[in-house]
Amino acid sequence: MKPHELGARELARRIARGELTALEVVQDFLAEVAAREGELHAWTRIDADFALRQARELDAGVYRGLLHGVPVGVKDIFDTADLPTEYGSPIYKGHRPAWDAACVAAARAAGALILGKTVTTEFATMVPAATVHPRNPRHTPGGSSSGSAAAVAARMVPLAYGTQTVGSIVRPAAYCGVVGYKPSYGLLSRSGMKMGAESLDTPGVLARSVEDATLIAAASAMLPELAHLGVIEQPRLGVCRSPNWKHMSREGAAAFEKVVDRLGREGAKLVDAELPESFGELDETAQRILTYEMARGLAHEVAQFRGNVHPMLLARVEDPAASEHKHYTIALKYAAECRRQFVQHADGIDAIVTPSATGEAPFGLESTGNTAMNRLWTLLHGPCVTVPAGDGPGGLPLGVQLVRPYGGDRADAHLLAVARWVEGVLT
Amino acid sequence: MKPHELGARELARRIARGELTALEVVQDFLAEVAAREGELHAWTRIDADFALRQARELDAGVYRGLLHGVPVGVKDIFDTADLPTEYGSPIYKGHRPAWDAACVAAARAAGALILGKTVTTEFATMVPAATVHPRNPRHTPGGSSSGSAAAVAARMVPLAYGTQTVGSIVRPAAYCGVVGYKPSYGLLSRSGMKMGAESLDTPGVLARSVEDATLIAAASAMLPELAHLGVIEQPRLGVCRSPNWKHMSREGAAAFEKVVDRLGREGAKLVDAELPESFGELDETAQRILTYEMARGLAHEVAQFRGNVHPMLLARVEDPAASEHKHYTIALKYAAECRRQFVQHADGIDAIVTPSATGEAPFGLESTGNTAMNRLWTLLHGPCVTVPAGDGPGGLPLGVQLVRPYGGDRADAHLLAVARWVEGVLT
Repeated sequence: MKPHELGARELARRIARGELTALEVVQDFLAEVAAREGELHAWTRIDADFALRQARELDAGVYRGLLHGVPVGVKDIFDTADLPTEYGSPIYKGHRPAWDAACVAAARAAGALILGKTVTTEFATMVPAATVHPRNPRHTPGGSSSGSAAAVAARMVPLAYGTQTVGSIVRPAAYCGVVGYKPSYGLLSRSGMKMGAESLDTPGVLARSVEDATLIAAASAMLPELAHLGVIEQPRLGVCRSPNWKHMSREGAAAFEKVVDRLGREGAKLVDAELPESFGELDETAQRILTYEMARGLAHEVAQFRGNVHPMLLARVEDPAASEHKHYTIALKYAAECRRQFVQHADGIDAIVTPSATGEAPFGLESTGNTAMNRLWTLLHGPCVTVPAGDGPGGLPLGVQLVRPYGGDRADAHLLAVARWVEGVLT
Repeated sequence: MKPHELGARELARRIARGELTALEVVQDFLAEVAAREGELHAWTRIDADFALRQARELDAGVYRGLLHGVPVGVKDIFDTADLPTEYGSPIYKGHRPAWDAACVAAARAAGALILGKTVTTEFATMVPAATVHPRNPRHTPGGSSSGSAAAVAARMVPLAYGTQTVGSIVRPAAYCGVVGYKPSYGLLSRSGMKMGAESLDTPGVLARSVEDATLIAAASAMLPELAHLGVIEQPRLGVCRSPNWKHMSREGAAAFEKVVDRLGREGAKLVDAELPESFGELDETAQRILTYEMARGLAHEVAQFRGNVHPMLLARVEDPAASEHKHYTIALKYAAECRRQFVQHADGIDAIVTPSATGEAPFGLESTGNTAMNRLWTLLHGPCVTVPAGDGPGGLPLGVQLVRPYGGDRADAHLLAVARWVEGVLT
């Protein structure tokens, strides 16, 4: 197998054993980029010289850590000192930050090789970008981590960073058929990340397997112990179609039911875990918080570069809800209460199982898809992992999502162990 | 009275009425800077041309808002597109950001004139900086918002931004004899602020009066309604010497008792509001969270510029506690529980009254002073306001602090109304 066909753990293992060099690895990935990028537009910047220089330094130097020699794509919402960072906005054309974002710095300290910057939608919002779906260029890859999802799916890079404020990791990962891991809120530092809505923004990762996702998450969190996944068998799964089930496509809904059946047949203990009625305002709450906080987070861009802010985004930050402080504080309070209740709700369950998206990646590039299966979980601050669950009738991938309350991915990385079990059943 | 002797509201009023121009105002403040800065070292950068240019633009243009023509100092932990931003670190010598921090942008959109950048300690931590106390250069002005406190106290600027992660607004403001306002966690956006510890970092403001502090806070939060302070009489004040009372200097403790007596004689209803024993771990909890989060937030600087990170700071981020994820998550949980309990604890009280610092600004410049009266309140996420409370026996200022649970400064700006009442009694 060529390096680009291997996962991140296997690459790291072979490099550590001297069976592969970082240079051989990066050259192979660069060849894949050369072959696929013209069609996919997953990258805002690949600097081959920079990539090769890092590889030679890693090959010549001491072993640095978990990711020694493994190429990583960085969503262009994270600052990088060596590559331009434009946040998907014409305002920041050619912008070169003074630092690496903290989680990128942590990964580099553990030996990661930065291959390039991946496409983000404008300020990681719903404004679509140029990336297309790796299997069908007439379909969206999802967003806002569009480039990271497409690049990992197309095997142009084994690992990539994403961020999720609404559904920006789980949805594109599911659409593109890869693993997406949005950690608990706050697990990864946001220093050097362009924030949108502070109480929702969560950095995370995309990879081709759960094990690979945990590897980069562990390095980025500076917690190597997170890389050691426990083994779980016959997990107790709480099936939750969620209050947003009505948004599911018929095919997506049918596929989810089949996946749940399959998990049950393979040994999972299935229990009902529909959210109680008191969670009915999650959607509206997430929307209020998002609108209010984005208006403040983007104050500079709106004040100074109004003409270069996309009209969809301007409309959001100038929505009357953006100035309703009272409703915002009510929304924060409601969210905090739901987070507390969610801990009790999920008591005794190893993970909630729920759809990753409303169906396959939709046709067209004017929208990054429906966030209905994501926004409520992001608001709840717990970890979410999407695992590939085969293809839908349209021939594009589907995912299934595992969710736990806040903190359910710490220490023994419990949620990731459940996700790995599910991954093993479905692949 | 010359402009630099007036408060921010009065300046805004006179400029709006055409009784003063922004140019006259800024020229007068620049003269004060010329007179005092050589001794105080409160500024990292004053660009007179930039200041005068803004003044001329404001005088020639339409009325922008609450702060039209009022000079503001910006702690050099906030990014500014027009002035270098160095975060108190040699690593960022001459660094010029691509944007204004969101709260600076919001203030400018409301007409603020950026006079310059004020000194911060290194990355807003305990590492001291060059600023001296405006009344006695052998004493610390406090930190980390050292320059903002000294500049406002010396009337070099009427308003300034600060940030508080432990005690970085309230303590220096109290030491220097000005008003310091640390809002509820999250009230002001942190976009474009160099973060240290994400779950503690809080932007705030310093001014010469409570009314002036609310003016800039309202503009920065993009909530003009916050500028309208309600009137409160005979507030119910919960006296709290706090679990850290043992850290108080004898003189500081005696002065606090006198202030409380005075407030009672002037009509405040005093009740006991000592924190219950269950709050006993606040200090250690704050320390754990700080250490863990700073190690991650500064990952880039530590990995790439180790030799240019101050040894005190290196020792903190390399403390074993920085890698104890389990203790960190326990600390977060404990903090969240205390925040909930604090709401009940303060029920029916208009504000907690507690010392702002352990006493007068200490002698020497090698420490920015004891944070014992601040770190517990910062961890609780509620708003804190320090109001000048006369001078201590050493001839330096003392402050008294008003605190409420999270959200106690929203909408009707209740805490600020209480603080104004206290200010009226004490001045």
